[in-house]
Amino acid sequence: MVLRFQLDATFTFSKEIAKIQKEVQTIFDTTLSSIKAKQGPDTIQLQNLKATKNQFSFSIISEGSFRPHTALLQMKNTIGKELGKTHHIGVREITINQYRIEFDVEKPPLQEVTIPFAKVICKDTHVILTVQQADDEFLQKNYLDRMISRVKEKIENQYYEGKGEFWKSIWESPEKKPVWKKDPTEEMIQKGWLQQGPTKGKWMYRAQAAAVLKTMERIALEEVLIPLGFQEVIASHIVPFDIWLKTGHMEGMPGEFYYVAEPKTRDTKEWEHFVDLTKITKEIPVEELAKNVAVPRAGICYAQCPVLYWSLKGKTIAEESLPVLIYDNTAISGRYESGGRHGIERVDEFHRIEPVYIGTREQLLDLREKMLERYKHVFNNIFDLEWRMAWVTPWYMQQAGKVGAESQQETGTIDFEAYMPYRGDRKQSEWLEFQNLSILGDKYIKAFNIKAQKSDLWSGCSGIGLQRWTVAFLAQKGLDPADWPQGFRKYLEKIPEGITFL
Amino acid sequence: MVLRFQLDATFTFSKEIAKIQKEVQTIFDTTLSSIKAKQGPDTIQLQNLKATKNQFSFSIISEGSFRPHTALLQMKNTIGKELGKTHHIGVREITINQYRIEFDVEKPPLQEVTIPFAKVICKDTHVILTVQQADDEFLQKNYLDRMISRVKEKIENQYYEGKGEFWKSIWESPEKKPVWKKDPTEEMIQKGWLQQGPTKGKWMYRAQAAAVLKTMERIALEEVLIPLGFQEVIASHIVPFDIWLKTGHMEGMPGEFYYVAEPKTRDTKEWEHFVDLTKITKEIPVEELAKNVAVPRAGICYAQCPVLYWSLKGKTIAEESLPVLIYDNTAISGRYESGGRHGIERVDEFHRIEPVYIGTREQLLDLREKMLERYKHVFNNIFDLEWRMAWVTPWYMQQAGKVGAESQQETGTIDFEAYMPYRGDRKQSEWLEFQNLSILGDKYIKAFNIKAQKSDLWSGCSGIGLQRWTVAFLAQKGLDPADWPQGFRKYLEKIPEGITFL
Repeated sequence: MVLRFQLDATFTFSKEIAKIQKEVQTIFDTTLSSIKAKQGPDTIQLQNLKATKNQFSFSIISEGSFRPHTALLQMKNTIGKELGKTHHIGVREITINQYRIEFDVEKPPLQEVTIPFAKVICKDTHVILTVQQADDEFLQKNYLDRMISRVKEKIENQYYEGKGEFWKSIWESPEKKPVWKKDPTEEMIQKGWLQQGPTKGKWMYRAQAAAVLKTMERIALEEVLIPLGFQEVIASHIVPFDIWLKTGHMEGMPGEFYYVAEPKTRDTKEWEHFVDLTKITKEIPVEELAKNVAVPRAGICYAQCPVLYWSLKGKTIAEESLPVLIYDNTAISGRYESGGRHGIERVDEFHRIEPVYIGTREQLLDLREKMLERYKHVFNNIFDLEWRMAWVTPWYMQQAGKVGAESQQETGTIDFEAYMPYRGDRKQSEWLEFQNLSILGDKYIKAFNIKAQKSDLWSGCSGIGLQRWTVAFLAQKGLDPADWPQGFRKYLEKIPEGITFL
Repeated sequence: MVLRFQLDATFTFSKEIAKIQKEVQTIFDTTLSSIKAKQGPDTIQLQNLKATKNQFSFSIISEGSFRPHTALLQMKNTIGKELGKTHHIGVREITINQYRIEFDVEKPPLQEVTIPFAKVICKDTHVILTVQQADDEFLQKNYLDRMISRVKEKIENQYYEGKGEFWKSIWESPEKKPVWKKDPTEEMIQKGWLQQGPTKGKWMYRAQAAAVLKTMERIALEEVLIPLGFQEVIASHIVPFDIWLKTGHMEGMPGEFYYVAEPKTRDTKEWEHFVDLTKITKEIPVEELAKNVAVPRAGICYAQCPVLYWSLKGKTIAEESLPVLIYDNTAISGRYESGGRHGIERVDEFHRIEPVYIGTREQLLDLREKMLERYKHVFNNIFDLEWRMAWVTPWYMQQAGKVGAESQQETGTIDFEAYMPYRGDRKQSEWLEFQNLSILGDKYIKAFNIKAQKSDLWSGCSGIGLQRWTVAFLAQKGLDPADWPQGFRKYLEKIPEGITFL
């Protein structure tokens, strides 16, 4: 892709420049020469120079990796340094008259593409960006390159959107005859094991349902994580935006977070009017509340791994501690599911154990085999499930345009899917993703600058959702412990009685 | 306290009333007579009647429990019903010219008192409220009585504020020689067991600290809750305001909540501009975020009991299920602590097990003895702590003006406090509240309309804070398992190794 830039700018000086026009011209020439020396002779040109009173207008044209605004800022600084002392003159203001960027993309856009700060015109695979807002921050923080990437990404996504996710089966259990074909959530509600929670997509697990979830937790710990040497840590479940900026979640799914806002103050005097109104009207005075609550700067945990990586940010890990094997079993996950909610399998609040592993490529590929073996043991021998495994492409790879090359057998995600008899025929119906296992290469390692004494590090994680395990098991095995496989009954022989209501 | 009301109002009619003045007068007289018949002859008077064109002005004066605006609304309705058909006339508008309430309080206010909707003038113990805003909602929802209560409460609180909390020691362990006198949080940070969390007042418990917290959890379950027959339930940790309105938390501590806000939509189109800006600027566009996030309507769990009570709202419990013994060990508590944070003992995010018990008075008094016995066993035999118990008055009793009558030995709260050697001399320094146990009578039972088949119900709860147990233990016993009492070492013999950093 050839990148071509044209920047039309005007320097407004602090005084008239008639006397120093030559010196300015020399500074421009010198700057350009030094850039050409580094970047190559054809990379940059200066055109349309025009001086009037206290202004100097010009165009910078460049190609390739050099950005004209870098030259612009260099020239401004040099003028300040060289002419400031001798002539007491400097650039008071930079005006960007026009900033145009042209480049080619692989395929033409299917729909119009828009981005902030610039107008986008596409002629087949040729893209022209005309910047419409360019202040100091825009130039200094180099928004431009990320704008170009964003346009490319949006065009690629237009092609991607139509297609399904990459999915390739790698293992299937034999068919198993399900005990029943009912929706376990509905049946648990009927039996009083489970109750809709106080807000959307959340549940109250009474003693009976809680006993099943807690059994899943014990099995995950005792049959998978503890035998493999994982150690428990306890992470905060309130995640500030700066962590999600590093992991890409903030860009990836801002519409799926539960946002967390602090009070502006704890001072009871400041809250007195709110309390007065609440006590008198017995309703929440929404406007008064808005005055006293700050803008959100954090959200409830979406998955535990970002905070686990954050906890190792900038650290250098001793070789003897590799692979690092940790898990969090405390932080509660919140995801705003909107219309997609169903039962306890697609919920806004759920409970996951998340193991995170960090080590060399070899250590992690070896660990993956061991984890797969432990998971197979649980799902085959303890749950006796009908299930399968498939390679899938997670969102962040899709987002980055890395859509499902079949060769991704080292890094990538394996989904574990269980047949849900209540959804219909095993061939036709959608199976439930009830477990996954990822090796992510150095993506998060780099994002959080985690190092080892000597080795190059990779990392991965494998979310164990207790609700998903519960539904996968109950949907095939029913609610009567008499029907459950022996392996599971060793862990939970009977359901607690719970409370009788009239 | 004698309550005296004077309401000066004007009815504006839809037409001139010269012709029907008599009929209106009759309706007024009839309404008043029927009120006097029910409430007593001296309760209400009508004065200063004046008719002009299409208006009718008058004063209603009443004493005691009857409210003049009730008569006002009755008269308006009767006019509509009786004169609407015959004369096609009705009250188009009610204007409140003045609404004055006078009453006496026990003690004169120490400072000025203000409330919404009215001006407050106090002359010694005599209070005059002059209503300044009275729309339909004000009259229909009867704000007035809650305004009177609020004024009384504010005056009572002025006397209360100066005084300390009610506190009466009821049991003390013998003195124990502490192993060390260091602040366990500081030492755990030094040793790498513990790390400041990503936001204020939250912590990352690495494997070493997590092992201690999880041991506390096991001891609480195995030595206290399971032997007493408590059953685990799993509650949502996102609490909508309507639950906190019922428990009084919303009025009690709105400045201490972590508020939860949902996205306005999950639609990626609506979030596209936010994502564009985030990807290009690598910062959160706060204004764009504010557009897409809704007003908070919930908060993160403050204590688990409100949601546990809510889960039984409106239910009738079979006698055989009494006492109901449940606990939540999943919901994470968040409290905005502001300036008061210290170590892991006063934090914004903590992990508690909360048992809730519901039963007859006798059942709960009996249970309290058993729970005290189990807690004593843990703190004496397993932790070998120096600690004490005291009756205290919780905030909601203070708020209600029920300040510490010493006879409250049936309902009320017992605080468990541990000596913190790092804070100095055992007689001079503040001990740490590390456990409590409450019996609350029928306060929450009534708030959530929970009933039993036959019996009258009481309830109570007893928060077990894992961080508090941990600090109480470590502050006296140190970080070296070799120094720990045998009873505790049976549960945790050694600290996991954790990760070595260079």
